[in-house]
Amino acid sequence: MPTESKVDVLVLGAGPAGLMCAQGLKRAGVNVRIIDKRPKKVAAGQADGVQPRTIEVLQSYGLAERLLREGNQMHMVAFYNPSPNGGIERTGRTADITAPSARYPFEVTLHQGAIEAIFLDSMRELGLEVDRPIIPTALELSHDENELRDPQSYPVKVTLKHLDFGSEGQDDTEIVYAKFVVGADGAHSWVRKTLGIIMDGEQTDYIWGVVDLIPSTNFPDIRNRCAIHSSNGSCMIIPREGDKVRLYIQLSDKDVVVDKATGRVDKEKTKVGPEELLEVARKSFSPFTIEKAGEIDWWTIYLIGQRVAQKFSVHERVFIAGDACHTHSPKAGQGMNASMNDTHNLIWKMTYVLRGWADISLLRTYEFERRKYAQDLIAFDKNHEAFLEAFQTFGAFSCGIGIHYSPSSIPSMPNITELKHQSLTSHQTVGMRILPHVFVRAADARPFEIQDLLPANTKWKLVVFVGDIGPGKIKQIERVAKLADDLGKSTGLLKRYEDGVFEILTICATVKECLNYTDLPEVLRPHWSRVLLDDVDMFGRTGGKGYDIYGVDPSQGAIIVVRPDGYVGTVTPLEGVKDLETYFDTFLIRTL
Amino acid sequence: MPTESKVDVLVLGAGPAGLMCAQGLKRAGVNVRIIDKRPKKVAAGQADGVQPRTIEVLQSYGLAERLLREGNQMHMVAFYNPSPNGGIERTGRTADITAPSARYPFEVTLHQGAIEAIFLDSMRELGLEVDRPIIPTALELSHDENELRDPQSYPVKVTLKHLDFGSEGQDDTEIVYAKFVVGADGAHSWVRKTLGIIMDGEQTDYIWGVVDLIPSTNFPDIRNRCAIHSSNGSCMIIPREGDKVRLYIQLSDKDVVVDKATGRVDKEKTKVGPEELLEVARKSFSPFTIEKAGEIDWWTIYLIGQRVAQKFSVHERVFIAGDACHTHSPKAGQGMNASMNDTHNLIWKMTYVLRGWADISLLRTYEFERRKYAQDLIAFDKNHEAFLEAFQTFGAFSCGIGIHYSPSSIPSMPNITELKHQSLTSHQTVGMRILPHVFVRAADARPFEIQDLLPANTKWKLVVFVGDIGPGKIKQIERVAKLADDLGKSTGLLKRYEDGVFEILTICATVKECLNYTDLPEVLRPHWSRVLLDDVDMFGRTGGKGYDIYGVDPSQGAIIVVRPDGYVGTVTPLEGVKDLETYFDTFLIRTL
Repeated sequence: MPTESKVDVLVLGAGPAGLMCAQGLKRAGVNVRIIDKRPKKVAAGQADGVQPRTIEVLQSYGLAERLLREGNQMHMVAFYNPSPNGGIERTGRTADITAPSARYPFEVTLHQGAIEAIFLDSMRELGLEVDRPIIPTALELSHDENELRDPQSYPVKVTLKHLDFGSEGQDDTEIVYAKFVVGADGAHSWVRKTLGIIMDGEQTDYIWGVVDLIPSTNFPDIRNRCAIHSSNGSCMIIPREGDKVRLYIQLSDKDVVVDKATGRVDKEKTKVGPEELLEVARKSFSPFTIEKAGEIDWWTIYLIGQRVAQKFSVHERVFIAGDACHTHSPKAGQGMNASMNDTHNLIWKMTYVLRGWADISLLRTYEFERRKYAQDLIAFDKNHEAFLEAFQTFGAFSCGIGIHYSPSSIPSMPNITELKHQSLTSHQTVGMRILPHVFVRAADARPFEIQDLLPANTKWKLVVFVGDIGPGKIKQIERVAKLADDLGKSTGLLKRYEDGVFEILTICATVKECLNYTDLPEVLRPHWSRVLLDDVDMFGRTGGKGYDIYGVDPSQGAIIVVRPDGYVGTVTPLEGVKDLETYFDTFLIRTL
Repeated sequence: MPTESKVDVLVLGAGPAGLMCAQGLKRAGVNVRIIDKRPKKVAAGQADGVQPRTIEVLQSYGLAERLLREGNQMHMVAFYNPSPNGGIERTGRTADITAPSARYPFEVTLHQGAIEAIFLDSMRELGLEVDRPIIPTALELSHDENELRDPQSYPVKVTLKHLDFGSEGQDDTEIVYAKFVVGADGAHSWVRKTLGIIMDGEQTDYIWGVVDLIPSTNFPDIRNRCAIHSSNGSCMIIPREGDKVRLYIQLSDKDVVVDKATGRVDKEKTKVGPEELLEVARKSFSPFTIEKAGEIDWWTIYLIGQRVAQKFSVHERVFIAGDACHTHSPKAGQGMNASMNDTHNLIWKMTYVLRGWADISLLRTYEFERRKYAQDLIAFDKNHEAFLEAFQTFGAFSCGIGIHYSPSSIPSMPNITELKHQSLTSHQTVGMRILPHVFVRAADARPFEIQDLLPANTKWKLVVFVGDIGPGKIKQIERVAKLADDLGKSTGLLKRYEDGVFEILTICATVKECLNYTDLPEVLRPHWSRVLLDDVDMFGRTGGKGYDIYGVDPSQGAIIVVRPDGYVGTVTPLEGVKDLETYFDTFLIRTL
């Protein structure tokens, strides 16, 4: 008899999407299990570029510090083109990313194994390990509508096979009943195939060879991201941790043999190996030289397939995420980033539904928000198929900073309410991530990055820009007192849902010498640490002009509602508590 | 028969001075042992203020990150004085520190137990634990001059007693033969008394009560450092980690009973306890209220004794450090900082002597440099005995930034050589710590704080400001080529001592778009990461104007020699390799 067990969320696949999902759910206190078919984590190679927005997201879980310590940073990109004297010459150097609002104005490169280790170690501290090696062999989803509607039911039955169970008559089969299943099982997703979900899109003609090595070279930009376009072929350089470098080498279909059945490169029949790839690179580098210093760390050859799944879930009980639902060109390094951001989007929604705090329909917004983003990403890439063009336009969108969730992503939310006060925060767009900025804490003049005060702790944040309430600003002080009354009402916003939904952060447009944190009404300072000032620190090194950054008028103020995943849900005036109630009533379950 | 053993360095006392010493020596690969009489580390209270320079020093060992994560930061100081309406009122707020060059422009407060834990955990990673509970019972130092001169001899015999050895006939005595002994055993130092070293100085009349508590208060500056001067007494506030606060309460000699024999407060006979101290504080706070929320964490009463030992070592084989050789008023929070900086000064010197890289006379500079500093500290404090004045002048000196080691601190070094080129770095004083500043790495445009590239790894750093060597700067390029030749000579600076004495860091006054790190001669770029540019980062957020910061002319350049402890040893022009050879020949042992 196979073992049987129950779990709230079963995550299939321990790559970046699955690990992000599992750590986030575990951190939120959700009963979660994660399995993977590989006996060990990936050691080298594979995806390795972490974009500015993904660093911000990792930071929101407390995971960026180690990434920044272990990874390489790409700040500059260099362009090389054919020189009139033969060989190549540098035609320009510019910033690696072009999103001026990025908190981390660079990309981090680190091999996928090290990135996975960051998740694995943080999960271990939380008491969660990956179960491996295990594969799923069957998945059944209930057709019972009542069961599907009830978030506390277990409508998914998954059969698992333990690959390491020995031959001593041990039953290697296990049955798991899950409330929700997340298929984060890669580009060849078993979950997607089992659910019969179709991928839209086509293979393109580009074929890439990839080599990871420690180079010995006189090439002056070996530590910068480079686009090399020579008469002898094209090549990209991605510097990596330590002295390592990754080379992406463009191949033609003459160089490789493609297996027609799978659409993948037939490595057996293809006569191109790491030495041949390096030889192609050598020709592009001339007159500079590049040799390997030591062994080649990792290499591969693959075709670019840009595809998006038609659906990202079935009945909002089984989801697919990451490469399982979209695959991208390596050119702009999107794949792993989009994958982690998929499940980052899902974590808080699933948590709210499982806690009974939000209606199950909230989960529909996962596909709404993430499928559109995956499609946009490919459309963006298609518009920039030219090799160099993609580099030169590596802007806010491909940094991940440009992610913009449309209104009505929260179900049954009338568009008008979400956006009607957008003008109060003219530089902080509703649907985009909260802008990073340094404010000074009122109680002790210590500077803080606001994103660090809005962590991914499953809470909704009400960031209250109270305006200038300094000496003599009677009118604004009165408006703030009225807001405090509105928020404090016994059936009001802060009382009508489960405890723990909201956190308040108050930002005053008053200088530190004049304001006492004790000047604020108590509801706007639940702790002394929750009052910030829009001012520079004691030595003028950081902070200041925050109201300008968000486009808030200090004589008006505004309330910015930040979702648990760091995206702005809506904006209201200080008199907008009723609007907030309407907004949250559409998806949060009332207790009063 | 007692156990006998040998060790290179025996550290007695595992407070901040002893722990700094042990971790630094262990990190440098020195055979070191540390013992302490306490069965466990201190849990709460005691010293807790870490000054800007001490944070820089901890960072040089890789220990500041955790301190900054766990500790509280004091950025602002507030002054309260009697109000004409009765009670107190705020008369000003200003920066907590006044050293504009501080890398960390604030003080960190954290209880001594947590600071010790940072050292203990880092030592454990290096494979070193504190042996405890153990006390020394006898110390004998050889009188044999040959033995004393030979750094590889074991002239110190220390008898130890293990306090936890049971009654089962186990011998609790141990004999240790040490090359060097460091007595870091506190204000009542057994080592100092055993060596018969006299403390100079007097008790002052000030008596302080100290209470650590979590307050419930409407006082608006409870999270700032405060000096409260009221008609009902005076009080200082030091905010601590979490919600904790420390109150220093000034008492009069009527309040306490002093034991004439020891000069310490007789806690038995003194009728003042934590509640009485809080009551005194309450009176100073009026019209604000302060109550404890929960239990009182820690409290004490003590007299200020400001004293400095007449000697800091005997024959440069037994040293005393920290409170064992100087004690200070708590007013400016100096004690623990001076203690850690004592042994920071000693670590590299002892390491060089033990490795056979430097003459044993180098150890004389420990007393020369640190005793003068301890005396200056007390002189400074005496000049500012008035309560508030000490606060208002809490400047570069008391931040630790102002530490200035005099010329000739390196023995037999003619003053003239150390200082003759001082004008080449008009803002970087020889004898002071290398100024912090952000430069951009040439190879990848990544910004770095220069202090992070000059860690306490026992190496001397040659920071070579090569000037502007951009396109067309033929003269400067020629000077740099000549410098490379001078440095590369087969009997020259880089070859004449043991391998591993020097690290080179090259700083170009050329913008990132124009310079290739490969443009530098190889001796000035031993690795691609060792070339920096005086330029802003890709988004202009940090860096730039570094030559101005150090006062170096980009058309001249300069070589700044940084000692292993981060202090500037000397400065020379690019043509000054001969001067450098003279400088190092005075204390490094030549191998060629």
